[in-house]
Amino acid sequence: MLKKIILGISIILTGVMLAACGSVDNLSSDTNSSSGSKSKTQLTGQTNSGYYQGVIKNGRYQTSKSRGVSVQQESNQFNIKGFENGLLNISKNQFSTKEYIFQEGQYLSTKQVEAWLGRKSKSNPTGLNPKKSKSTNPKTRTPVYLSQINEQDYMTRTGKSLKLSGMTVGLAINSVDYYKKTQYGPTFETDISNMEVSQHGKEIANQVLQRLRSKKALKNIPIVIALYKQASDDSLVGGNFFTYSVNKQGASKINKWTAIKQKNYVFPLQSSQKGPSQNDEDAFANFKSETQSFFPNLSGVTAQAQYTNGSLSGMNINITTQFYSQTEIISFTQYIQTAAQKYLPANAPIDITVQSTEGIQSFLSRKANEKKFSAHIFNSY
Amino acid sequence: MLKKIILGISIILTGVMLAACGSVDNLSSDTNSSSGSKSKTQLTGQTNSGYYQGVIKNGRYQTSKSRGVSVQQESNQFNIKGFENGLLNISKNQFSTKEYIFQEGQYLSTKQVEAWLGRKSKSNPTGLNPKKSKSTNPKTRTPVYLSQINEQDYMTRTGKSLKLSGMTVGLAINSVDYYKKTQYGPTFETDISNMEVSQHGKEIANQVLQRLRSKKALKNIPIVIALYKQASDDSLVGGNFFTYSVNKQGASKINKWTAIKQKNYVFPLQSSQKGPSQNDEDAFANFKSETQSFFPNLSGVTAQAQYTNGSLSGMNINITTQFYSQTEIISFTQYIQTAAQKYLPANAPIDITVQSTEGIQSFLSRKANEKKFSAHIFNSY
Repeated sequence: MLKKIILGISIILTGVMLAACGSVDNLSSDTNSSSGSKSKTQLTGQTNSGYYQGVIKNGRYQTSKSRGVSVQQESNQFNIKGFENGLLNISKNQFSTKEYIFQEGQYLSTKQVEAWLGRKSKSNPTGLNPKKSKSTNPKTRTPVYLSQINEQDYMTRTGKSLKLSGMTVGLAINSVDYYKKTQYGPTFETDISNMEVSQHGKEIANQVLQRLRSKKALKNIPIVIALYKQASDDSLVGGNFFTYSVNKQGASKINKWTAIKQKNYVFPLQSSQKGPSQNDEDAFANFKSETQSFFPNLSGVTAQAQYTNGSLSGMNINITTQFYSQTEIISFTQYIQTAAQKYLPANAPIDITVQSTEGIQSFLSRKANEKKFSAHIFNSY
Repeated sequence: MLKKIILGISIILTGVMLAACGSVDNLSSDTNSSSGSKSKTQLTGQTNSGYYQGVIKNGRYQTSKSRGVSVQQESNQFNIKGFENGLLNISKNQFSTKEYIFQEGQYLSTKQVEAWLGRKSKSNPTGLNPKKSKSTNPKTRTPVYLSQINEQDYMTRTGKSLKLSGMTVGLAINSVDYYKKTQYGPTFETDISNMEVSQHGKEIANQVLQRLRSKKALKNIPIVIALYKQASDDSLVGGNFFTYSVNKQGASKINKWTAIKQKNYVFPLQSSQKGPSQNDEDAFANFKSETQSFFPNLSGVTAQAQYTNGSLSGMNINITTQFYSQTEIISFTQYIQTAAQKYLPANAPIDITVQSTEGIQSFLSRKANEKKFSAHIFNSY
């Protein structure tokens, strides 16, 4: 009998605890519990000041109104991740992660974005890509320029609610347009020059800004528009942002573009390719050769490297090898930690993931301006 | 001309640097460079005092003489990783990671281990598993008990060389023996009771100790033997060590076994299963429900939990979900960090990996006795 009562109390307590814990950072606490739970806005919490907090509504993450469009349309994953990460970095310069809260785009819907990404036509008057030309010749046809649109909303708190206080829109422009002449035919390519990427990107950006300003909620906020040049589908690294513009509240025409000097490379470079830094290439080559021959079986070592204003701003190294025991994984990881500190370029943030056919086995990381790599070895019981 | 000389010098310098850097921790530096490079022993370096340094010989990791036998023979990965990790932990209690250096087993060869793992027969007199019985009935046949052997060597430094100063041998005993009556026929199972696992494991351990002592190099070192009960092939968590014995130098018969109270669970528990702690189960259930409904699409949340002497000694949580953007990954990870700190049991080390169909996206970790989870979000350029 007593047991049942205690059990009953525990269930109630658990319920109360759950309700209390549900609001990680409850912004609008309504006294009316039923309507209160409907309109509850929370924040995700913050891992470190390098990330924005995100918005949770009614217990769920507030996903983008155009969620999934990019994932559906892009065939190169690196163009998606690089585009989104790069756009966040541009936003951080305008909207500090301390003051602003990130909200997934709420003003452009899937339908709208899909229409904008399409070609202009009678049935699709809002298409931002040129009308289909009669020519199907790679050099004379009109290619599809605009490939991805990413809207990011930046909110500030006023009292207990969030207010839209800024927006960043990324436009990803193809450097290669892939197309078919017949439905199941082979794929052809139209190369798009840097000049065309830039010119058409800027034209499209102006149209986008105008359209955004026609929405009432977006009239009086700063809107940042950034242009990204997509990498080709076979690239092992994403494209790069090359320019952005900050448009003050009300401005519906872009006055000024600021250039971004950023480029990504895959190490080891192809023999025909000219890299940005012989030192970094040598450093990577030394690390690679030191790592590669650790086991009797060879390890694969490649890297994505990002250069900003000519110097290394980040590197992701991927090592794949076959392990025959957990102790091999531990020894290898420790060895790599020593080798990484010895060989790899200083200052830039570097991640190293160690993989086997079974998935990730360990990973090492050094943040910007840290000296030592920290290592984590994945465990199993 | 000057350029060529500078280039020449750089190449020489690079070579010298490479040679110098090659020896992470050079133990035997021979003055004769040619023979010196042949016999060079190095150590891997140490990530933290929780891990042993490993042995590198002649620029390569000194792999086990029976490398790959377990990987070939075991069908449940968890039984391999859990076995090896568990054995390391037992070793650490006998051979401190500060004083001792780990060396992959050098005294049992692939041929030997394969013979020992076989059934005893005319052609395989050293087989440690019983002769094949005529009966193929699951209850009356003689099953295969011994399934894995893992030898770990523990070295100490004397001057510039390493000396074998201890050994740990793990023996993994089947709790279920899988067999076929005809070559391509269906698989049958013989269940092996805990009593049998223990009894046969201990008998085999005595034979192994005797055999090891017959090798000259192993006569006068302490040898630890530990017994592991393997999980069934369909288990989502590995088996567990249940006893070990420390045998002083010279001792060729095991006098004393020390029990290990350790068990692994998969959370959420099956409804029929009785868990070790209702509190931990509730904590996990709360974390799971909080996490699972973050996105409109459901996330999968499971965990491996290890209990030692009745209390939680470690947990690996695996979350799989579908992400539609990098910002979703960032928001989700930050949210999980808050939720993990709020809900999950204190004190025990906990790892959380967040995966999508594209592989690992982020990971969070809290070491034993730490309060906060650290998070890492994988990036791409």
